[in-house]
Amino acid sequence: MALTIIPLAGIPEVRPGDDVARMIVDAANAGSGIEAGDVIVVTQKIVSKAEGRVLSLDTVTPSPEAEKLAAETEKDPRLVELILRESRGVVRQRGPVLITETQHGFICANAGIDASNVGPEGIVCLLPEDPDASARNIRDAIRTATGADVAVIISDTFGRPWREGHTNVAIGVAGMLPFVDYVGQTDSHGYELRVTTICAADELAAAAELVQNKLDAVPVAIVRGYPYVRGEGAAREIVRDREKDLFR
Amino acid sequence: MALTIIPLAGIPEVRPGDDVARMIVDAANAGSGIEAGDVIVVTQKIVSKAEGRVLSLDTVTPSPEAEKLAAETEKDPRLVELILRESRGVVRQRGPVLITETQHGFICANAGIDASNVGPEGIVCLLPEDPDASARNIRDAIRTATGADVAVIISDTFGRPWREGHTNVAIGVAGMLPFVDYVGQTDSHGYELRVTTICAADELAAAAELVQNKLDAVPVAIVRGYPYVRGEGAAREIVRDREKDLFR
Repeated sequence: MALTIIPLAGIPEVRPGDDVARMIVDAANAGSGIEAGDVIVVTQKIVSKAEGRVLSLDTVTPSPEAEKLAAETEKDPRLVELILRESRGVVRQRGPVLITETQHGFICANAGIDASNVGPEGIVCLLPEDPDASARNIRDAIRTATGADVAVIISDTFGRPWREGHTNVAIGVAGMLPFVDYVGQTDSHGYELRVTTICAADELAAAAELVQNKLDAVPVAIVRGYPYVRGEGAAREIVRDREKDLFR
Repeated sequence: MALTIIPLAGIPEVRPGDDVARMIVDAANAGSGIEAGDVIVVTQKIVSKAEGRVLSLDTVTPSPEAEKLAAETEKDPRLVELILRESRGVVRQRGPVLITETQHGFICANAGIDASNVGPEGIVCLLPEDPDASARNIRDAIRTATGADVAVIISDTFGRPWREGHTNVAIGVAGMLPFVDYVGQTDSHGYELRVTTICAADELAAAAELVQNKLDAVPVAIVRGYPYVRGEGAAREIVRDREKDLFR
């Protein structure tokens, strides 16, 4: 069956305390609606803003460690202080590039802190404290408002090793299992069957980006027609255990 | 605008020498057709098969190096010999996991060799020798047959560091630029604008997988409604230069 990815137009500028689920439902009601089985992909930034995860660099006092790392990376020491606070540790550092492991376990540049519109006000945007909880809250509120049982993915734009360009991945998941297991060809020879585990949540986040593009212009997309596996789900399951990882 | 991802049913089992473009056009003509601006996402395996990149392990004599690595990874020495031939080098090795850099520059498990249906015949499937050329050939043949100017992506299923599960990525591209640059918020303060480069080709490959699933059941999907940037394009552009990479 064909799958449709619908950009959700009409989400207003989000401010701390705003009800993102309500904004999504209102925007959807003016257009494609929300149906049971939809996957609602919400970009991280509006979730962070609604949750008040924005702050002014003026409120931050850098530690000596942040001052040192800031000099090496030619970044604002206050921004580096925030990156370190949001991180379990630095994974790689070279020139201006600073890859850290966030408190959630995600590995990305600058602990996922968005400093793209730092003006004189010095406002930056942190990742949600618990993006899985953010996804659950939005999912529950959408169900309460519409009766529709949907899955919700919080997405963010991450770089990756070996390949140029960024792609959107899932940092929060609710209402679906993030993985699907496919079993390969039926093996009539007694050989082991190949099982491939696909991270459907990341593929859904990537697919949604194709209509969200232009950064924050379309912060929400609805993926309709994808037969996800229902379940509690959590993006934390996507984080590979440190001991199993070969690239730290 | 909404984007549609259409699984292309009715592609028969592909054999060496088969005309994949013709099979795609025939299957599309029986259903959704092919329209100018479509992105045709073709999984690697049928391309490799059509190009004769299948061979029997019985024809392979392992080198001493392959014998040694096979013992360490508990793999068939003949398979390891092929992995080494297809690779510029081993990137990581631990237990049964063998991550190599392919001759194309892709970093993935087992040089991308698919040994999932190795039976007594010992048939394995290598990546296309030049997946960008494969994509160009399919694109040209589709245009000749239908008149439609489309983009073609050859996709494969790769694991990645730090995150569990595999996702589909582009290993061949023709007719579109693999990247899109987005410029962030207009900066009225004289600060630098943020530019995010998205690897649209990888996101399209991932999106297509959502309807292709079940491994080889649906080897082709059509993404309709994505305003890609026309151009020669090549998945080789996605490969990050060794010197710029922090995770080798």
